[in-house]
Parts: sequence; structure tokens; C-alpha cells
Amino acid sequence: MRAAIISIGDELMLGQTIDTNAAWLSAELAARGIVTIEHRTIGDDRAALGETVRRLASKVDLLILTGGLGPTADDLTREALADALTPGQALVRDAAAVAQLERWFSTHGSGMPKSNLKQADHPQGTQLLANPHGTALGIAGRLGACQVFALPGPPAEMMPMLLEQVLPALERPASSDVVLTEAVHAYGLGESAGAERLGSLMDRGREPLVGTTVSESILTARIVARGPQASARRELDRTIAVVKQKWHPYVFGCANGSLASAVGELLRAGGRTLTTAESCTGGLLGKMIVDVAGSSDYYLGGWVTYTNELKQSCLAVPEAVLTEHGAVSEPTARAMAEGALQASGADYSLAITGIAGPDGETPDKRLGTVFIGLGQVIEGNVRVAVRQFAFPGDRWAVRDRSAKSALQMLRFTLLGVLDDTHLLWAVHP
Amino acid sequence: MRAAIISIGDELMLGQTIDTNAAWLSAELAARGIVTIEHRTIGDDRAALGETVRRLASKVDLLILTGGLGPTADDLTREALADALTPGQALVRDAAAVAQLERWFSTHGSGMPKSNLKQADHPQGTQLLANPHGTALGIAGRLGACQVFALPGPPAEMMPMLLEQVLPALERPASSDVVLTEAVHAYGLGESAGAERLGSLMDRGREPLVGTTVSESILTARIVARGPQASARRELDRTIAVVKQKWHPYVFGCANGSLASAVGELLRAGGRTLTTAESCTGGLLGKMIVDVAGSSDYYLGGWVTYTNELKQSCLAVPEAVLTEHGAVSEPTARAMAEGALQASGADYSLAITGIAGPDGETPDKRLGTVFIGLGQVIEGNVRVAVRQFAFPGDRWAVRDRSAKSALQMLRFTLLGVLDDTHLLWAVHP
Repeated sequence: MRAAIISIGDELMLGQTIDTNAAWLSAELAARGIVTIEHRTIGDDRAALGETVRRLASKVDLLILTGGLGPTADDLTREALADALTPGQALVRDAAAVAQLERWFSTHGSGMPKSNLKQADHPQGTQLLANPHGTALGIAGRLGACQVFALPGPPAEMMPMLLEQVLPALERPASSDVVLTEAVHAYGLGESAGAERLGSLMDRGREPLVGTTVSESILTARIVARGPQASARRELDRTIAVVKQKWHPYVFGCANGSLASAVGELLRAGGRTLTTAESCTGGLLGKMIVDVAGSSDYYLGGWVTYTNELKQSCLAVPEAVLTEHGAVSEPTARAMAEGALQASGADYSLAITGIAGPDGETPDKRLGTVFIGLGQVIEGNVRVAVRQFAFPGDRWAVRDRSAKSALQMLRFTLLGVLDDTHLLWAVHP
Repeated sequence: MRAAIISIGDELMLGQTIDTNAAWLSAELAARGIVTIEHRTIGDDRAALGETVRRLASKVDLLILTGGLGPTADDLTREALADALTPGQALVRDAAAVAQLERWFSTHGSGMPKSNLKQADHPQGTQLLANPHGTALGIAGRLGACQVFALPGPPAEMMPMLLEQVLPALERPASSDVVLTEAVHAYGLGESAGAERLGSLMDRGREPLVGTTVSESILTARIVARGPQASARRELDRTIAVVKQKWHPYVFGCANGSLASAVGELLRAGGRTLTTAESCTGGLLGKMIVDVAGSSDYYLGGWVTYTNELKQSCLAVPEAVLTEHGAVSEPTARAMAEGALQASGADYSLAITGIAGPDGETPDKRLGTVFIGLGQVIEGNVRVAVRQFAFPGDRWAVRDRSAKSALQMLRFTLLGVLDDTHLLWAVHP
């Protein structure tokens, strides 16, 4: 089964927005044995879009469009689809969809603007697809032997519509050969060190194929297995297991797993609780933890003590420590971790203080200098381990790496991995 | 002058990599008056690529390919280009390029692998383009009236090659006409309401052209002005001013400006300070504030009071309020905002408590129910305004919208806009 994808929007053609939908769609289709042979991106141009739909529909079995289903004048996917599927015939308005849209607006606190009415329009002979996450309804139709689906542009609306409505509606069974992919994520290991550990696993001719990428400091092994479903799955699983073993203890998850969800599972399994005390990260660590649904099971909350005054009043960091060693220091990180444990009653605390820049650098404390304290209560006694890091990168990168390193430190502790296990950018005493 | 862009690679077709080259190229070309009418992405498929080059070259004046110039067996751009430009003729090997490649490898500490020799190959009648940053040489040729350029895939190699070698080699002077773009961002206004306010500004034929998009709940007007530099700039600025006026008070910035940076500028200008008290957002609001460099000038820090216990101990939320009204309630948001002002000494506080899901929903407090308190000290007296919201979307969207709505509430207050000014998803009492 062959597919093509069309991404629609002037903002894409002008380079104002990067298209992430096409890659996601391709990966989802590939996992089901559907080969995408082409992506096209075109502007908000009714004639060009209609023509492109006609051409591609003659070449593939499945055509997916994203974008151009909004309520404004430059949203022309409905009209272009009609030009291609039912030339010369006007769009029809679906009364049930109008009622749905009105309900959406009344649920969300306002009346429906008149312009949204056009989102209930679709070409004759096509079906509207419900959108529980927005007002851009999808459209399902066909042109000759090709099934055609128009989906909204925002990923949060497009993704569930593909998974819940498009894939179940595909008429031909996907081929028995599939392309299965998996991503195995690690943190705290450099890309070359990671590649050395993988060795011949990364040979180009190998099946399954293994490649590495780094994105936002996460090192990922991307594994691609092809063949009949059962053997592809078996080979994929086998390679995943080998990568996990070679990258131990840095591997924290696969696919959409995050460091914070890996830590959360360990905390939940042990019935333990966590608190945070953040300075330069300003809430980022708490945000990562709370990104995980159900984090209230183990996360009590925390402090963003951006000023010295709040470090003292909230976390009982002694004034002498701040004046003698400075806010960015081993003793301050230690006192923050201790204070957070005391004030919250949690079993574990993570404290971060550092220089994220662009200001605040001093000759002996360079941009990227960060101290991370990990506090824990062991049989009633408080124990704090502090590690110093020298993170490369700008304000954003330093803060992101600080929060991730803190989570990996806690993960190591929860797994019983030694405190001083090498971590990328850690400064060894 | 019209252009098309082809991005090449199986990793793009499988969705393992997101193509950022096409957007960058489009933006660079647009700034020089060259209109990209289409992007295509295709896999490492010699026949499909050759055919696509032939087709697109008949439609545009400039065709840019990226990718497929590496040394391995799946790099087929050279061969496909020959199929399209000089059918039936073999590639030629450039002796000077071979020498260059050998120099590259000896400079970087190793001998040249034999596989790299093919990077000195190109179709007859084309020219090689030097690559100071890697071994993938570019190729410049023509097919009929169309200039064709093949560039390497890695952005760090592709970008300088475009700027230094392709743009200067364009035969027709890029017209003196340019394409200038600007993005004007607003929050708290729905897309249809925003479009209604813009009215005829959004007409398809209008010059400058105005379109709207929504990304992560930010409503953006994308303005495109074409023509000679001076008049395009003047018309662009004029339209920006009109959009800002029509979207007042929701517009917070242009280009890369964020809500948090707009709020930060107002706080800094007034010499005022801010603190935060977060429950369901878990630190996200603090993170957004601290994303802005220099935020320590006005942000003191805050609390992530995820549990009721921390709401009581840190923010002095009375136990009676929590038991009587619940953690997600107007009185709790009010007490959190008051408590944060007291404990921090800040001039303003933002407090967020709500149900982000997937758990925690009750019959009278649906997922997306969020209370946001804005506290301020006016002549020594504390005043708190609380607004209730019914945010659509999942956990991620509810939390993102909560933090952004809090920032917009504070921005309104700092600008002297009335507290009860309509905000998208606010529940009117």
C-alpha cells in the first residue's frame, strides 16, 4: 500500500513554520506497512491544491492532507478537495456538524462566530470526521481507487484523528511486510561514546538497522526492522535489548518515554515521594515532573527560590552559606536539598543552583556552572550528595541539561547505581 | 522568479527526521523576492528523483535539491540528476575535486576511504560547488530555462553553500522586488474572533497579504508584503500597526517575542516584582518567566504546591478553605495568591489551581477547570482578582493554556486593561 502526504499552508511555503506533521504521519504509516512515496508542501492556493490532489490520487492508494481546515478565508482545503473530487459541485453543509460546533463553543464559554460555520462544509459524497480537540473537522472521501483524508494542521488535533478515525477506515489490509521502528533513549552519555559502545550494531548493512541521533541532549538509538510482522518484531525486540544493555545505566526509556516518567515509575514502585528546590531552572524541573500524568502520586511540590531571600525564608539556607560561598555553590545546593526535605516531608529532594546566563558569570564561576543536590532520608537521617556540572550551551540548554541531569541523578540512586557514575558534563572532583 | 525545493532521503520518508532545510531555504529565497511554489520530499529512489527533477524544472526558474550527496550506496542524487539532465550519459569524475577531497581527509587526520571518490562525480556539463565544511560537494547545472542546484543535506553544509555559491550564481537578477514577512502574536482571542476583527485585511487578493494561524494557543497574523524594498517595508509596517490596533489588547509581540517577555518588560519598566504559586502547572509558569534572560530583575521565585499540605504550610491556605471548597476553587486560588504575596514580598502574584487531567475530574469540576488568581499590593493593601477558565484539550494543553492565561491576566493589569476583559475560555460569572 502506497501513500502520499500533502502539507498545506502559506506559512510553510514562506518558511515561517517547520512542518512536523509529515514526518509523524510517515512514521505511523510505515509502522503499519504503508510506504509513503512522497510528501508535498504547497501554499494556500486552491487551484494548485486541487491539481496536486488529482495527480497524487492517481499514483497512490492513500492520500493524506493536513492543514487549511480552519475558519478563515485562507483555509481552502475544503474547496480544493471539492474541485478534485466533485468538480463543479458546491460544498454541502452538515447540520449535525453545525450542532456539534455550537456545542463546542457553548462548552468553552462563548457563542459560535459565524465564520466557523464553514467548518461544517464538505464536498458531496464525503464524510466529516469528528474532532474532539478543536473545531476543524476532518474529511474522508475517495478519488478513483484512492482514499483521501483531510486532517487539521495542529498536531494535537491531527494525531488522534489519524489514529482513531483514519487508520481504522483504511479499506485494503496493509501488506504483510512491515517497517517497525523503535527509539531507545539515553541521557548522560555522549554520542561518540554511545556509538563506540554499540560497535558493529551500527553497520550500515545490518538488519535491523541502527542509527543514533541527539536531540535536546537525549541520545537516541533509532532502530528500523523490515519484513513479515512476526520476524520484524522479534528482530526489533532483540536489537532493543542489546542497545539497552550496552547503554546501561543511561537508557531510561523508549518511544515517548521521558526521564521524568522513568523516575516517576521508580518512585511509585517504591512508594516514595519527591520535592524540588530550583533556582536557575525556575520551575523547569517541576514542570518536567508534572508533565507526567499521575505525578501527584509521588511529587509533593517544590520551590522556585530565585532570590537569596527566598532561599533563606523558604529553605532555611543559612545567610552565612550564601555570603561565604555564594548562591551558586556546593554548600548552597546542599542546604537547598536539606531545606526542601525538611519543609516538605518528602523522601527525596532535588536542588539546582547555577549560572544559566547570559548574565551572572564570574571568573571562577563560568556560564554553565551548576550544582545539583540530591537529598534523601535514610532511616531518619538526611543524606545529601552534590555534583558539580559544567554544561555547554546557552541559557536554554544549560537549564534543560540541569533539570535532566537532576532527574538522571535521582534515577541512578533509585536503581542503586553508584553516585559517582560518569555523567556527561559532570566535573569530577 | 519561481522556485521549487526537493528534499531527499529515506530517513525523511520514514519520518525519522524532520526536514528543516526546506523552511530555511524558502525563507531565504522569499527575502530575495523568489517565491517557492512547492516543496517535495522523496526517498532515496533514483527513478522517482530523476522524474521529479524533470517535472519541476519545467514549472520553475530555480530548482534546489538537498540531500543524497553522501559517499554511501543510498546517495543517488548525482545519478538521478544525470538521468534528468544528460540522459544516457555517465557521470564524469573531477580530478581537482578528488585532490580536494584527499586534502580534506589528510587535514582531518585520516586517509580517504575509497567510497568518498564518488563525491567527485557529477553529470557532464554541470559544475561542482566547493564544500568547506564537509565532503559532499554541491552540483550546479541547468535543465532548459531552469537553474538546478544540488546541495548537501546537513544544514551546516547546505546553508553556507546557498548563501556563498548559489545566490551569487543566479542568472536572472532576483527581481528588485522582495518578500518581507512579519508575525504578530496574540493570546486570549479565538481564531475566528481574530479574523472577524481583521475583516477585509484578510482578503485573498490584498497586498500585503494577511493570514492567521494558531500554534500552541497563540494566534498569529502572518503578514507578507511584496514589492520594491522601501514600499514593501512601508506597507508591511502599516499593516502590522493595523493588526496590532485591531487585536488590542491581546497582541503581546512580534517575531520571537513571548508573553512572558512582554510581561517582563512591563514589570521592569515599572520597577515591580512578581511571584508565582502553582498547582496543576507544576512549575511551568515559573519556567516560562525564567525562559526570559534577565528575569531575575523582576521575578523573585515561587512555589509549586502540588499537595494540600504544601498549600497550607507554604502559602497559608486555610485548611477550612480546602475542605469546604476544595483545592480547585476560587477561594483556594485567592488564598494562594495572597499567601504568595505575603511570603515573598512581591508586588504581584499569579496563582494557578485546576484539573489538568487525566485524573481528578468530578461531576461539577470537569477536566480543564482552572482558577487563576492575580494578586497585587496597592498602597499596602492586597487585592486579588480570580478568574475561572474551562480549557479544552489534554493535560499538556490545559497546563500550557493556564500558564499563558495567567501571564495575559497580569499583562492586562499592568496595561490598565479591565480585569474582566474577555479572555478565550474564561467562564463568565
